[in-house]
Amino acid sequence: MIWIQEDVRLRAYPRGFHLVTREVEEALPELSSIGVGVAHVFIRHTSASLALNENASPDVRRDFETWFSRAVPDGAPYFTHTLEGDDDMPAHIKAALTAVSLSIPVTAGRPALGQWQGIYLFEHRDGAHRRHVAAHVSA
Amino acid sequence: MIWIQEDVRLRAYPRGFHLVTREVEEALPELSSIGVGVAHVFIRHTSASLALNENASPDVRRDFETWFSRAVPDGAPYFTHTLEGDDDMPAHIKAALTAVSLSIPVTAGRPALGQWQGIYLFEHRDGAHRRHVAAHVSA
Amino acid sequence: MIWIQEDVRLRAYPRGFHLVTREVEEALPELSSIGVGVAHVFIRHTSASLALNENASPDVRRDFETWFSRAVPDGAPYFTHTLEGDDDMPAHIKAALTAVSLSIPVTAGRPALGQWQGIYLFEHRDGAHRRHVAAHVSA
Repeated sequence: MIWIQEDVRLRAYPRGFHLVTREVEEALPELSSIGVGVAHVFIRHTSASLALNENASPDVRRDFETWFSRAVPDGAPYFTHTLEGDDDMPAHIKAALTAVSLSIPVTAGRPALGQWQGIYLFEHRDGAHRRHVAAHVSA
Repeated sequence: MIWIQEDVRLRAYPRGFHLVTREVEEALPELSSIGVGVAHVFIRHTSASLALNENASPDVRRDFETWFSRAVPDGAPYFTHTLEGDDDMPAHIKAALTAVSLSIPVTAGRPALGQWQGIYLFEHRDGAHRRHVAAHVSA
Repeated sequence: MIWIQEDVRLRAYPRGFHLVTREVEEALPELSSIGVGVAHVFIRHTSASLALNENASPDVRRDFETWFSRAVPDGAPYFTHTLEGDDDMPAHIKAALTAVSLSIPVTAGRPALGQWQGIYLFEHRDGAHRRHVAAHVSA
């Protein structure tokens, strides 16, 4: 049996929804030698999160930002956890609404993503942060 | 150690929330021989998603559709990704809000679901699609 | 290879958002002997759910309750699944919006949580329930 466990430090991304499929795959070169397995991608933060979603159109990423920022508004008057800024509590809620871990089957050396699926980083905070992702693959 | 990996092609379901527990289990007959393991159920799409939820009342499924379609309205004027129809961008958002993968312990030959839990397919697009689910079991 | 599978019965918590990291870890003393592995934490219910989120400020937990109860209101007139109370259908929706399973890498005997991450129980029903969590660790 093979275990691979890597701490992947992503580049800094501004607030928004970003495709990081290639960045994650490049941090896991051992994947290519795995015939059948499963990869767990885990983000170690509470104000950024993960998703698998549409990997083609930039307008999808923009519309994500629009919808999430309307649904969980910065500086809403009913928030009490405001010491770290108007975007902080909304970031925690958006993180709870999306994914902290993705479990993806690995087949023939690659994550078995659907044709239109890419790995997304959802950066919910204003300002650019370098986020840590822990990847764990077993095969 | 045992690995099972199957590409499960579900029947075509119309827009809405559908119980597919039996369909998924029947595609994995090897489950019955597993004493202790874990099953990962992964949907390979960006406009349909998964959940574990209440497995008894049809009105729960109807209320899911009502709530999600109010929260993420078809054809909302702030969406810019509209080329593929009024239901397309909402489908991507609903998929991000729910689950793309479920990791379920397997005990004594069966997924260790709670009494009221069933595996749901959330079909977010108008029109019926046949969706692919990749199932990976390790034991 | 090591498999650990435990049925963890949590204490009863009232409606709200509760940190249960210690309770889950104490139910898995075998974790401390694991160098590299992955832990799956799975809740066997449809009206309570899980998250990893901010582990420090009580006001974060309060704001979670405020936001979720505004987004999915008890007794909304468009719900039809009302036999089990005004809080029941909202509980199912909140569970679908958050997590039923968390997959967390294990490193050097501990879940590789980020500095600010804690395991949350989201209890969506009025009244206190004792919830069952199935934990599965492979290493």
